[in-house]
Amino acid sequence: MANKPRLRDLGISIGRLPTGPYNAITDVPGVRVGHTTVIFDTPKVARTGVTIIAPREGPTREDHVFAGYYSFNGCGAMTGLLWLEESGQLISEIALTGTYTVGTVYDALVQATTDGGYGSQLPVVGETYDGFLNQGPAFHVTREHVFQALAGAAGGPVVEGNVGGGTGMKCHDFKGGIGTSSRIATTPFGQYTVGALVQANQGERIDLMVAGVPVGQEIGPEVVPLAQRGPEEHEPQSSILAILATDAPLLPFQCKRLAQRATIGLARSGSYGHNWSGDIFLAFTVGNHLWPYASAPDCVQMLPNEQLDPLFLAAAEAVEESILNALCAAETMTGQQGRTIHALPHDALVSVMRKYGRL
Amino acid sequence: MANKPRLRDLGISIGRLPTGPYNAITDVPGVRVGHTTVIFDTPKVARTGVTIIAPREGPTREDHVFAGYYSFNGCGAMTGLLWLEESGQLISEIALTGTYTVGTVYDALVQATTDGGYGSQLPVVGETYDGFLNQGPAFHVTREHVFQALAGAAGGPVVEGNVGGGTGMKCHDFKGGIGTSSRIATTPFGQYTVGALVQANQGERIDLMVAGVPVGQEIGPEVVPLAQRGPEEHEPQSSILAILATDAPLLPFQCKRLAQRATIGLARSGSYGHNWSGDIFLAFTVGNHLWPYASAPDCVQMLPNEQLDPLFLAAAEAVEESILNALCAAETMTGQQGRTIHALPHDALVSVMRKYGRL
Amino acid sequence: MANKPRLRDLGISIGRLPTGPYNAITDVPGVRVGHTTVIFDTPKVARTGVTIIAPREGPTREDHVFAGYYSFNGCGAMTGLLWLEESGQLISEIALTGTYTVGTVYDALVQATTDGGYGSQLPVVGETYDGFLNQGPAFHVTREHVFQALAGAAGGPVVEGNVGGGTGMKCHDFKGGIGTSSRIATTPFGQYTVGALVQANQGERIDLMVAGVPVGQEIGPEVVPLAQRGPEEHEPQSSILAILATDAPLLPFQCKRLAQRATIGLARSGSYGHNWSGDIFLAFTVGNHLWPYASAPDCVQMLPNEQLDPLFLAAAEAVEESILNALCAAETMTGQQGRTIHALPHDALVSVMRKYGRL
Amino acid sequence: MANKPRLRDLGISIGRLPTGPYNAITDVPGVRVGHTTVIFDTPKVARTGVTIIAPREGPTREDHVFAGYYSFNGCGAMTGLLWLEESGQLISEIALTGTYTVGTVYDALVQATTDGGYGSQLPVVGETYDGFLNQGPAFHVTREHVFQALAGAAGGPVVEGNVGGGTGMKCHDFKGGIGTSSRIATTPFGQYTVGALVQANQGERIDLMVAGVPVGQEIGPEVVPLAQRGPEEHEPQSSILAILATDAPLLPFQCKRLAQRATIGLARSGSYGHNWSGDIFLAFTVGNHLWPYASAPDCVQMLPNEQLDPLFLAAAEAVEESILNALCAAETMTGQQGRTIHALPHDALVSVMRKYGRL
Repeated sequence: MANKPRLRDLGISIGRLPTGPYNAITDVPGVRVGHTTVIFDTPKVARTGVTIIAPREGPTREDHVFAGYYSFNGCGAMTGLLWLEESGQLISEIALTGTYTVGTVYDALVQATTDGGYGSQLPVVGETYDGFLNQGPAFHVTREHVFQALAGAAGGPVVEGNVGGGTGMKCHDFKGGIGTSSRIATTPFGQYTVGALVQANQGERIDLMVAGVPVGQEIGPEVVPLAQRGPEEHEPQSSILAILATDAPLLPFQCKRLAQRATIGLARSGSYGHNWSGDIFLAFTVGNHLWPYASAPDCVQMLPNEQLDPLFLAAAEAVEESILNALCAAETMTGQQGRTIHALPHDALVSVMRKYGRL
Repeated sequence: MANKPRLRDLGISIGRLPTGPYNAITDVPGVRVGHTTVIFDTPKVARTGVTIIAPREGPTREDHVFAGYYSFNGCGAMTGLLWLEESGQLISEIALTGTYTVGTVYDALVQATTDGGYGSQLPVVGETYDGFLNQGPAFHVTREHVFQALAGAAGGPVVEGNVGGGTGMKCHDFKGGIGTSSRIATTPFGQYTVGALVQANQGERIDLMVAGVPVGQEIGPEVVPLAQRGPEEHEPQSSILAILATDAPLLPFQCKRLAQRATIGLARSGSYGHNWSGDIFLAFTVGNHLWPYASAPDCVQMLPNEQLDPLFLAAAEAVEESILNALCAAETMTGQQGRTIHALPHDALVSVMRKYGRL
Repeated sequence: MANKPRLRDLGISIGRLPTGPYNAITDVPGVRVGHTTVIFDTPKVARTGVTIIAPREGPTREDHVFAGYYSFNGCGAMTGLLWLEESGQLISEIALTGTYTVGTVYDALVQATTDGGYGSQLPVVGETYDGFLNQGPAFHVTREHVFQALAGAAGGPVVEGNVGGGTGMKCHDFKGGIGTSSRIATTPFGQYTVGALVQANQGERIDLMVAGVPVGQEIGPEVVPLAQRGPEEHEPQSSILAILATDAPLLPFQCKRLAQRATIGLARSGSYGHNWSGDIFLAFTVGNHLWPYASAPDCVQMLPNEQLDPLFLAAAEAVEESILNALCAAETMTGQQGRTIHALPHDALVSVMRKYGRL
Repeated sequence: MANKPRLRDLGISIGRLPTGPYNAITDVPGVRVGHTTVIFDTPKVARTGVTIIAPREGPTREDHVFAGYYSFNGCGAMTGLLWLEESGQLISEIALTGTYTVGTVYDALVQATTDGGYGSQLPVVGETYDGFLNQGPAFHVTREHVFQALAGAAGGPVVEGNVGGGTGMKCHDFKGGIGTSSRIATTPFGQYTVGALVQANQGERIDLMVAGVPVGQEIGPEVVPLAQRGPEEHEPQSSILAILATDAPLLPFQCKRLAQRATIGLARSGSYGHNWSGDIFLAFTVGNHLWPYASAPDCVQMLPNEQLDPLFLAAAEAVEESILNALCAAETMTGQQGRTIHALPHDALVSVMRKYGRL
């Protein structure tokens, strides 16, 4: 899976800022990602999993991160946001999973936290709907799967596509899933990294754009078949979760501003926020440290607002490329009822880009 | 438990509007309440449970209710709010439970929904912290408990105090729990009912006020001992969930306005929104009907904004009295580690009120 | 005007925290207040004015303050809030005036800013409705009046009642206007001051509460007549603006949390947020310094969230007492069409408090 | 000015939905637009004006419209939004102008309202910064100019470019200003029109995109010079106001959802929300009627959420094309200090589009 070319390997680039070394959210120092992928066929068909994003090298409980969120369209769940907004802080790992397994993943994070000897339990668990391929509600993801993803969370390259929470996802009616990217933003005060990770499950075929090119229209259902659903099914469920990380010293309201810029990347890949879409974006920064029960006021740094533009652009570009990386990495998958979602074919993508003067 | 006098039975009344027949959230036509109380001592001490508020006589999935929410202080969880805000609607039952059991209750509601043959699953589960008496995380509340509360939800009088989600709660350092109340609001277009139900776990002894009287100061720790906690415990966890229901034909933004008025009732009972408090208020109306996948635009009614004042006052009064009803109903309880929380003594309450010219 | 006793001089106290030396918003170091009162009878009747709150000793343009706001009920105008929320900062003086003069006051602040050689112009101008006594729209307040209030802004005692923006206001159907108060909040990291200033124009007679005592019901229209309006007038316009200042080192989201606590003080004085009320609360802190176009990230301090409770209580108490101070200071006034609003009589207030065991 | 070709006249189209007959916000029945353009050179250089959007054929005061707003980046002013959000309604005309003239325009709308015999005054006035060409603060726009724009507001074709509030604007470092567009959205319940009008003052040259093509990079400063500013000036001020109108029967929260989709159009034209940008979007619907002081609850219709996608797409496309129409219509203008902003050259635009396979 890891050997498939990413978007840039195909010669297609997004935006004008350079990427970090891994072109991944893990380019932000200390940020770790862990996946547990849950695939089996009996007794019920499982095409699901859980992805963990750990903000710190060590326990986030002992060194909180400032955070903010923005819901562009809220047909989705992300738990823990009331306290995140009220406190300005993220105090634990983030978990991404399918719609049917939010409760179990929530329980698992509560247990992991209390087992670690920590107090209040308001974990952040996000979901997108994998019920097209994955049979639910069958509680395929167990607490053990979550512990595994937590234990396996690591820096370095991030596996993309049909993994973790992204296993069963569908994006612009191609196979979707997990994607990531990063950018280096240069300010007068130095360089900062902005990384993104998405669980991409949004959009219709016709709307897919790559670097401004109407790829979805060109690779229409005649070229690559749409996923077939039954006549009784009303609407394609379609959602995207985006997690943004940075090492720039931001305050919570600035994290929220960063999160809002995920909308830009989403727009440019062709989405416009369907009614049934849970387009929820969360941004955090490791650039400040917040010790719980500190013995003096916390000293924190704030990148002045007037220096944020490079970070805003970085967030937009990283989210746009993360979505496309998810599409490039995900492989064709068959799930329940013999349903199949096809991968975005790299050769067709390349030839469309060439036609539009981009390669 | 149901035989203890309620606040009004003691001769103490709140506000100037009349109550409905049950002085309960169930005075709003179709609203039902169900409790499962979970109390046992081994292998771990359970003092917890789950309370269901069902907005409609029939399945809410087939007749959505307009809803809105307000978080006065967000140190708490209530799931499902992103979609509630985005769609303006509540599409399922509301569950209230303890902090440790949100995940399981969430799973249960997802399962109940899909078992019922319905689609999207974004249940509303709220929590307050019962970890003083209740040992956690032990997953004492099971899916079966939730199904039981759903099945048992009924109109008519509502049991208050140490029941359902309120079982292990503490309020102003007296025993807290579930409380309810209602008001009849008169407008030029007719009378409407506003009902409230709270899961009351908030506040310090010193701040408790009853009808403006500083009862908490008068019944200080010398009169009724505070719940004892260990030296290592930092802060009293303290939260209140308030659910407001009405039959007035409101739109979603008006439901949010109603929810904000819970703050008034909370303020007048002595709270001011502690940092560690999850003071989260949700209001819905059964006064409009919303058939999913309607075949024409929904025709709905809107009580004009300029007629809302009686409803705002009703919401404030009903929440204030619900809190005090919870305090009046809850009985002294001993939980894990032999910890005890004492009930508010009715006789002491009455004599303080008398001293301040109120009886 | 300044010689009338304040609430505390009558022996009535609010809450349990001590006040600052002036019991005024100016107890917060550097905060200054200036009033221009505009009263004349021809060609049109003027009972209006403008009040300036200046956050810093020097120009706020050169040393911004973190700020946040909360609108409990938004039937009112406060300009400049989009940028305040986006930037987390207040960058100029705040002006409070009547509904009819927002535009002129806005222009005046733009001119003052550009005359001072500063750039962007998004001034904060709040209003409540003084059109019962004051004839409008007659543009009684001129730019010159605003420059005067800016020039006259000073620390020390603050004149209350029928002054500045509060000149023509009505509160619980007594004469309202400007009121102020402060509290000292003690945290493990030292003491901080929280000051409040209100322009009080809200509420009905029947709902007025003083320290929990139903004063409005006791001093009903039989004791002190209500302001008479014509039969065609639908609703009493009723609004309150509250400005909170502190020297605690807060971040913007914490300022917003402080602002929300004004709701508590408002609730306890008897209001519940009428539909026609603009109940808008803004909080700022002088405890951090933000130099525009800084040459490095700003170093700021954050009082940890878990230490905020004393400040929250201080904000609630200071707002409650500010409202009552406005009522105690304001004198009976007659305006257009011979309409009169009566002052709250101190002797009647004292005797009601005595009746309820409070004096 | 009106004779210049619009974007579509150049053969360039945006999106996949058809436009209304005028391809303008006035395609929504009853919506009217009026401009007063203020251009003179002494005593101070004026390149400014005011644009009125009137939601109804008759007075909006007598038939309110549901409305909602979204601020993507709040470095700008739009007054009246607190009440718009609280009430869900827009109760008067909208005015767009330059930063320096908000106060005067506000006063003018207050006066027009009271002169018309109506009550409460919370007008909606938005601004973007025209201080590059226009000398400020000089109060060039008078109340009389506003009355003129109100009187002249009409349906039918809308003049674009250097007119009204857009007179002095700059967009992607070409001459900007007013632009408009519309779309027809087809739902199972019939067709609805979505119209947009923007005052476009945002963005950097390098980022301009037209239908996904990097036009700004191709027409760089070597081809068309950037507007020159002095070395002391820190940042390009850059903002966009977008007004969306529809005849679909929406509720206020749905109007807000529509407003959020302006972000999609903005993103696709190359912006990402600069820090100094006031990107503020307001949407209203004429599809419901709200009589103030109605004698019974209002009966309103709600297009079900699940039918909104075509409207969301329409909003995104109409805003994107409005921006490009503003760029196509605006002509090169010279203002204060001899500063010049060049128009986007149509021939260069066409040849870039051709190069990228779009023509």
